[in-house]
Amino acid sequence: MSANRLIYLPLGGAGEIGMNSYVYGYGPKGKERLILVDLGVAFPDMDTSPGVDLILPDVSWLHDKLDRLDAIFITHAHEDHIGALAPLWPQLEKKVYARRFTATIGRLKFEEAGLPVDQIVTVDPRPATVEVGPFKVQFVPVSHSIPESSALVIDTPAGRIFHSADFKIDATPVVGEGWDDARFAEIVKERPVKAMTCDSTNVFSTHEGRSEATLAEPLAELIRSRSGMVVATTFGSNVARLKTLAEAGRAADRTICVLGRSMKRMLSAAEEAAVLSGFPKTVTPEEALDVPRRNLMLLVTGSQGERRAASAQLSRGKYLGIEMKEGDTFLFSSKTIPGNEKDVFRVWNAFSEMGVQVIDDQGGKYHVSGHANRPDLEHVHRLILPDMLIPMHGEHRHLTEHVRIATEAGIAAAVAPNGTMLDLSGDVPEVAEYVETGRLYLDGTAIIGALDGVVRDRIRMALNGVVTVTVILDESDTPMGEPWVELMGLPPVGRGERPLSDTLEADLDEVIGRLGRKVMKDDDKLEEEIRKVVRQVAMEEIGKKPEVTVVISRLVAE
Amino acid sequence: MSANRLIYLPLGGAGEIGMNSYVYGYGPKGKERLILVDLGVAFPDMDTSPGVDLILPDVSWLHDKLDRLDAIFITHAHEDHIGALAPLWPQLEKKVYARRFTATIGRLKFEEAGLPVDQIVTVDPRPATVEVGPFKVQFVPVSHSIPESSALVIDTPAGRIFHSADFKIDATPVVGEGWDDARFAEIVKERPVKAMTCDSTNVFSTHEGRSEATLAEPLAELIRSRSGMVVATTFGSNVARLKTLAEAGRAADRTICVLGRSMKRMLSAAEEAAVLSGFPKTVTPEEALDVPRRNLMLLVTGSQGERRAASAQLSRGKYLGIEMKEGDTFLFSSKTIPGNEKDVFRVWNAFSEMGVQVIDDQGGKYHVSGHANRPDLEHVHRLILPDMLIPMHGEHRHLTEHVRIATEAGIAAAVAPNGTMLDLSGDVPEVAEYVETGRLYLDGTAIIGALDGVVRDRIRMALNGVVTVTVILDESDTPMGEPWVELMGLPPVGRGERPLSDTLEADLDEVIGRLGRKVMKDDDKLEEEIRKVVRQVAMEEIGKKPEVTVVISRLVAE
Repeated sequence: MSANRLIYLPLGGAGEIGMNSYVYGYGPKGKERLILVDLGVAFPDMDTSPGVDLILPDVSWLHDKLDRLDAIFITHAHEDHIGALAPLWPQLEKKVYARRFTATIGRLKFEEAGLPVDQIVTVDPRPATVEVGPFKVQFVPVSHSIPESSALVIDTPAGRIFHSADFKIDATPVVGEGWDDARFAEIVKERPVKAMTCDSTNVFSTHEGRSEATLAEPLAELIRSRSGMVVATTFGSNVARLKTLAEAGRAADRTICVLGRSMKRMLSAAEEAAVLSGFPKTVTPEEALDVPRRNLMLLVTGSQGERRAASAQLSRGKYLGIEMKEGDTFLFSSKTIPGNEKDVFRVWNAFSEMGVQVIDDQGGKYHVSGHANRPDLEHVHRLILPDMLIPMHGEHRHLTEHVRIATEAGIAAAVAPNGTMLDLSGDVPEVAEYVETGRLYLDGTAIIGALDGVVRDRIRMALNGVVTVTVILDESDTPMGEPWVELMGLPPVGRGERPLSDTLEADLDEVIGRLGRKVMKDDDKLEEEIRKVVRQVAMEEIGKKPEVTVVISRLVAE
Repeated sequence: MSANRLIYLPLGGAGEIGMNSYVYGYGPKGKERLILVDLGVAFPDMDTSPGVDLILPDVSWLHDKLDRLDAIFITHAHEDHIGALAPLWPQLEKKVYARRFTATIGRLKFEEAGLPVDQIVTVDPRPATVEVGPFKVQFVPVSHSIPESSALVIDTPAGRIFHSADFKIDATPVVGEGWDDARFAEIVKERPVKAMTCDSTNVFSTHEGRSEATLAEPLAELIRSRSGMVVATTFGSNVARLKTLAEAGRAADRTICVLGRSMKRMLSAAEEAAVLSGFPKTVTPEEALDVPRRNLMLLVTGSQGERRAASAQLSRGKYLGIEMKEGDTFLFSSKTIPGNEKDVFRVWNAFSEMGVQVIDDQGGKYHVSGHANRPDLEHVHRLILPDMLIPMHGEHRHLTEHVRIATEAGIAAAVAPNGTMLDLSGDVPEVAEYVETGRLYLDGTAIIGALDGVVRDRIRMALNGVVTVTVILDESDTPMGEPWVELMGLPPVGRGERPLSDTLEADLDEVIGRLGRKVMKDDDKLEEEIRKVVRQVAMEEIGKKPEVTVVISRLVAE
């Protein structure tokens, strides 16, 4: 008899914030039936991934196990949970289960990508149950910063798993059902939780989280007090915040106008999925032009200072005919994600130059987080009382800290970064195997591996500049004319006030003239010599060693 | 009679944090005698200045006024105040005045750059006075995060200016003289202050600043409580912090070892300048290897996660024979400067993977800022009672906020970003002129303008990749063989699973074959055709438009 086991394997999201993708499996070792929870993206940056459009988890571990993969579940419609679904679905081709709002967003993405929308199945929340293979999966409503975020109860013959997904404790979340301890106590009463995989984002925040509802009054007060136009930004998917902002605007006798494609899309998806009702009437940008500034409020995309979003466009001047002016107010009803500070401050400073007053979250007065803080995590640990706790959705430091607090509370816990397959069959989590995982880059329409060298070359070109050398040789390996040098991203003039390309061409000509027949016949050797000369001369002339591309053309007598 | 006027002109530092450089002038309009206060750098980043070594203020406004420039004053030895002195001094060649510690650092830099060290003059603090042209300048000790930081009292026939430089209010700064209101009251009593130019860095921090001395006890307690090795980082120039950390280490029976060139250099300069005494004895890294971990404490560079600093080296493995292990502690006795978050967290996560516990400033328990917070700024405004306040050392948003609080307190104030020449002769600051200012990049050994296009090309290459096309034409403008394509930083394979370079070469060959004689004879037109084809084909194949370098070689019959 081969014993069945229960396994957990993060392919993304554990050891980073973003790119969430988690595998659960049950069955005989190596023959487990599998489900995949979430397929999210991470976002590129100039430091590590210039030119890249999106970062996707590498799911190639699943490629030879597709016959064992029963389904994909998406917990909510944030890009770090759903963004890789369309790009990677063709590699998996399994049914996708999600609640209505998430499914609506998913289908929009599938439509754009030309994928079969009927592969996305809408599921009601618990007690509705999806049965696939040995798994019974229920969606449990939790509060977060997007409608219909859900934890998953995953029942297996080996026990119940509680996959928290992204959540916060919020009894009054403005949109959606409020947090209710009783709902979770019932889950545990029904069947004890063997393992809880848990959001770790805010484990370093030591104060209790605050409710979305606490923002209404301060926001209304702020908007009432301003005499010019008020423009507010938040994440487009934070439908509850948009509602709070719009209602605060209406209470201050302001007409609401929404700018930014992603925000409008989220609002209409929320209405379509019936999670949003009573959102104040909005006007188009053209109509907004006729509204007196003191009676106008814009809701705009670009809370992270994204260059193409509405906030950045407004900070650079007119956008869709609308312009910010002295006396107007711009509100960041949002937090700056680490790494985005410079972009956010660029927008802020540009508004400041216009005489626009910029107001940020002010330590929580105008923004609350969508993730559970440390005391809230501890509360949920006590509520769910899992035998084991596996932190997810966090960098390594978050996972470690989360394990520390769980361990202190007497719960068996393990740090399991991406690729760590845990066996959850026993009383404590045990490492079963280390699996190769990684990142893929969606670059234009191509998918490339993070380690393919493509992006490394881009970084090198950006740091060092590029010299292209063209040499033409005749049939007797003799250079025809001087070598030709092109510079890109390099200072045009060297130490002696002489054009760098002239110096390089002259020095190359001289060196090549002295090379023996053996080198001249051998492309690799000749290229190496040329490269050496270019790097050496550039170092002398401008103090840096550029990347060098050498093109050797050999003319053959016809 | 031509009236004399008193002018202020920021060349750097007003509208950004970094690159401080301020001009003061007195005399007939257009003939003012001038002094320059500080010559600092800003630091490059991948987003805007990849490959650049340092960012310098463009001082070319001074080039045709050198006969009127009387001296350079350096307020303190932070890089954003002194870093551009050596690179730009050859453009100015004026005497440099600074207090002893600052002068010591300045001379080290001059020595390295082969500049005349005797051009740096050591000045004692007030009442010592430097008289140059119509200016009488005194250095006033203030507390900051580096020894001997100084405000300047600048007396002119038109009135007294108080240039705050970087400061905080700290009565017990551990190293150097404590803040004493009486010192400043005396300055004002002696002669009222006409204009105060003032640090704006922490204008958004609403709580009172705390003293360096408050850290001693918490640090000592923390270090005592740890059982493994303790490694602490802070800015190398924060000599007071280094002393506090080292003393806390000694009190916990730990031997101190300093790792990192810049930190050692600062400590020895501080001893040379006699601003530091009683610093605990340190051991070399080799000696440290013989000390039991629980009796060892390292002070290391790299509080901002800099890749080549000691902290980052330790996070990647052995450094100078020393290795961090499970149970060790790493302390950031520092704040992360906005924009450096990812680098800091990279180091933190790497330590976390080693089982090292990482502790950060914990909201001020283990770090205090070197700049005055808003209540402290307000206190100093009341103390100095200037007729006018001109905020400096801040982004536009900081300057604006600082003007707001000054105006509320009834002080005439003006936002004057880089290039705004103010006339301070009257009762309120008035804009006299807008002067062209900018940034220079020190790139290797070359100095290039930020707008020269060199760095823009680097960014484009990083975002878009590069295709190099080589075409050889014979004397009748006929291509000799196929065009040759090289890719850099691009996905090697296109949509049809065919190598992108093959597709490009075939398509280019076909298109070139169809081009008329007129285009083939004209390098510019031919290049344009080739570029168009490459971008179009790449868009179809990989969904992006690369940068294109075209090399056309024409063989001439001999």
